Amino acid sequence: MNVLLKAKKVKVFAPASVSNVGCGFDIFGFALHHPGDELILRIVEKPGIHITRITGDNHHLPKDIKKNTAAVSIRAMMDVLKTEFGVEIELHKKMPLGSGLGSSAASAVASVFALNALLKNPFTKNDLLSFAMEGEKIASGSIAHADNVAPCLFGGFTLVRNSTVPDVIAIPVPSDIHCTVIHPHIEIKTESARKILRSQIKLSDAVHQWGNAAALVAGLMKSDYELIKRSIEDFVIEPIRSALIPNYFQVKEAALNNNALGCGISGSGPSIFALSRSLREAKYIGLEMKKVLNKIKLQSDIYISTINYEGPKVISLAKD
Amino acid sequence: MNVLLKAKKVKVFAPASVSNVGCGFDIFGFALHHPGDELILRIVEKPGIHITRITGDNHHLPKDIKKNTAAVSIRAMMDVLKTEFGVEIELHKKMPLGSGLGSSAASAVASVFALNALLKNPFTKNDLLSFAMEGEKIASGSIAHADNVAPCLFGGFTLVRNSTVPDVIAIPVPSDIHCTVIHPHIEIKTESARKILRSQIKLSDAVHQWGNAAALVAGLMKSDYELIKRSIEDFVIEPIRSALIPNYFQVKEAALNNNALGCGISGSGPSIFALSRSLREAKYIGLEMKKVLNKIKLQSDIYISTINYEGPKVISLAKD
Repeated sequence: MNVLLKAKKVKVFAPASVSNVGCGFDIFGFALHHPGDELILRIVEKPGIHITRITGDNHHLPKDIKKNTAAVSIRAMMDVLKTEFGVEIELHKKMPLGSGLGSSAASAVASVFALNALLKNPFTKNDLLSFAMEGEKIASGSIAHADNVAPCLFGGFTLVRNSTVPDVIAIPVPSDIHCTVIHPHIEIKTESARKILRSQIKLSDAVHQWGNAAALVAGLMKSDYELIKRSIEDFVIEPIRSALIPNYFQVKEAALNNNALGCGISGSGPSIFALSRSLREAKYIGLEMKKVLNKIKLQSDIYISTINYEGPKVISLAKD
Repeated sequence: MNVLLKAKKVKVFAPASVSNVGCGFDIFGFALHHPGDELILRIVEKPGIHITRITGDNHHLPKDIKKNTAAVSIRAMMDVLKTEFGVEIELHKKMPLGSGLGSSAASAVASVFALNALLKNPFTKNDLLSFAMEGEKIASGSIAHADNVAPCLFGGFTLVRNSTVPDVIAIPVPSDIHCTVIHPHIEIKTESARKILRSQIKLSDAVHQWGNAAALVAGLMKSDYELIKRSIEDFVIEPIRSALIPNYFQVKEAALNNNALGCGISGSGPSIFALSRSLREAKYIGLEMKKVLNKIKLQSDIYISTINYEGPKVISLAKD
């Protein structure tokens, strides 16, 4: 593929995302404005992918390009491009690893979005999705699901109908929805959080769950806040994964007692999200959730954001 | 409860309905304009409920008021009303029993809707739903689901988020949607069709199913026909229940090869529904489906209808 360079160096941002959203295990997700990853990508003559620097929460991150999600994703893209040039990547993790906020998805999206931007966007977002999914596969240690990659890349609230042949549907969300995320300082690996799930579930639980998933879409599209509140409940995953998060149900109660529209585990945890209808409420919910964890001396961070409809963005471009 | 009579006799119609609609086992349903049941209800001095006549497809229908869905439903309503009067019911079944078209729901809805109409509507539709569900319980021989009663009573395309405490959500549907129903002349009892289902299902199948259920709502609300088509598929129930319907997959193929937006088992079968975008297409799909059954000498009826948004209706009122 012939490509025309727009610049030689680009700095991009890719956002964190909340996946599952209660009732939508492996299908729902939405992007936040922050936290997120910054990635600097530079075109170099030396062929190959070179990770020159990783800063931030980098204690587990491999610089090995076969194991690093940003590298694996961009490898998939460069294989299609058949480039003669190489790339240098600096990854600035500005979000916690193993937090349930789509950290690996953000890095995967950042790298392919960066190279596409430098090349004047030869690929569509659907193309980028499949490249980023290659990186996500490395991170998740199992069949990859697009429920973080999709909102991170497309922005907004997304429904991934099918991860095998990704089919991403944008779900309109009322504009006043705010999200509070509390990130307790413990780490849960997606792979371990997946292993504890049962491979079989009760049909009656599944019916409840798909009733809720369908109703949440209706609630969001109709701006029916009461319906959103009733339908966000998770009958299948929360009963199991909540055991991994200290005082999970007390934190949830604190959110729901303070006007949250819904509350649940973000991705595979330990982060917990709560939805509300104003910045003021979102902040207050955050404080009340934090109080619960303070009591057991578990440190935590709070993030507050509306839905991020933009997804990844270019911060700066430079000729060298 | 003090009630004021509007008239002494009423004739009502309650429509057939297609439930499940592919991916929405036990949660989705929509009402048809025809077929349906007609019911004549007359207030009489003699207390109690008296079924005076059943016509039509009545070979299994009990006149015993403890076993007849119309009687059990109206009993629940009269218990709340604490009426001193009695009622006589004539039920004209104008739709096949055990067809998967919500026959028992139509009779249950017809009776409570009829008495409510005579009494100048003291009850809301939500009240009527709970009365009609008492009748549906008798018919289904298990925990009753509101996926036929809800569309029959409220009209339109409904999502029953929860059958235990019925939570019925109207889903807007593109106005050009037509439904073809083919009813093969075999009978499947809801109870038997439920017994063959597995009580446990694979989590991965469940995820596919709730992805589709959520996507079908999005597709209907966005009038995204391609999305409707992709998402109507059923991973959980069809693989099992299709075995009860001769040449099911050939009938389905005939529909999909002729522009159907989706095709599946109506309720617990044996009726098969197909959606399309015009009367012409709906008719043609019906003919092609029928050809498949003709080949194996299985007789069938075809019904064609748009979505019925009205639900039950009063045909006539009389003073005596």
